[in-house]
Amino acid sequence: MASVRIRQAEEGDCGNILKLIRELAEYEKLSDQVKISEEALRADGFGENPFYCCLVAELLPAPGEPQGPCVVVGYGLYYFIYSTWKGRNVYLEDIYVKPEYRGQGIGSKIIKKVAEVALERGCSQLRLTVLDWNKGAMDLYKALGARDLTEAEGWHSFRFEEEAMRELAGK
Amino acid sequence: MASVRIRQAEEGDCGNILKLIRELAEYEKLSDQVKISEEALRADGFGENPFYCCLVAELLPAPGEPQGPCVVVGYGLYYFIYSTWKGRNVYLEDIYVKPEYRGQGIGSKIIKKVAEVALERGCSQLRLTVLDWNKGAMDLYKALGARDLTEAEGWHSFRFEEEAMRELAGK
Repeated sequence: MASVRIRQAEEGDCGNILKLIRELAEYEKLSDQVKISEEALRADGFGENPFYCCLVAELLPAPGEPQGPCVVVGYGLYYFIYSTWKGRNVYLEDIYVKPEYRGQGIGSKIIKKVAEVALERGCSQLRLTVLDWNKGAMDLYKALGARDLTEAEGWHSFRFEEEAMRELAGK
Repeated sequence: MASVRIRQAEEGDCGNILKLIRELAEYEKLSDQVKISEEALRADGFGENPFYCCLVAELLPAPGEPQGPCVVVGYGLYYFIYSTWKGRNVYLEDIYVKPEYRGQGIGSKIIKKVAEVALERGCSQLRLTVLDWNKGAMDLYKALGARDLTEAEGWHSFRFEEEAMRELAGK
């Protein structure tokens, strides 16, 4: 089995990341909602004040194999948020591993790395959101020590879409 | 009835904001989780790269009343997040109006102002999270045009606390 490296994404990874974003949305049965472009990912993640950070998981060629470009098989996209209870925190917006590479602990490695980065930056919580039918993911997060706050405390996620926002703002 | 002004918070508001943060956590029956200090709120919201933005709702003295300092009766604390589907978005972390000032549309005014700021900054979604027993708040957000994504799509909020993160990071 090839070994896997988790590293911070570079601007040149954005094409691969976008492919994986689309795969994840398809898996979540919500792919009609993806409007982002590679250009936006480049501009928003790799400018002076980036809006997000991203880790990629790539397969390293086994010893003796030809040393071609590494294959990106997963990603974790996160950013810093702010809790009025605890201060600076991290939100893991997306985490995804291609289906054919699951079951090797790659997702856990990505979460572990996000936790390391978060602690280094003085954060004391890591939040994420998961679909309730995605039992594999829910079980993994729980096994890694996360609490399901919707179940435990009753938190519901709400969202205003652009049309509702325009209505509110009177525009 | 005194009129209400919604404005961006200034550093000098942090004491009042902290009091309201504590009141909100108490209302949510989760006040043991509040660890933030006024100093942290000042440093994190009013430095060069602030981690959050905050609106306050204040009562203006009625004409003819003595012009003392305005009373802050509510707040909305938000920050910018990143959607891999839509790009830059806004998350409304807290919204609170003191019980004795509810029913006057102050909460709606705060959300409306957050929507305006979000649109001005090119955001196309406004997210928030609410406790399922807080029916008044849920009904208000729905009436203003928000969708309950936990109900509609099955999203659950998960959180790793610091101890779980340290375990993950092997620290």
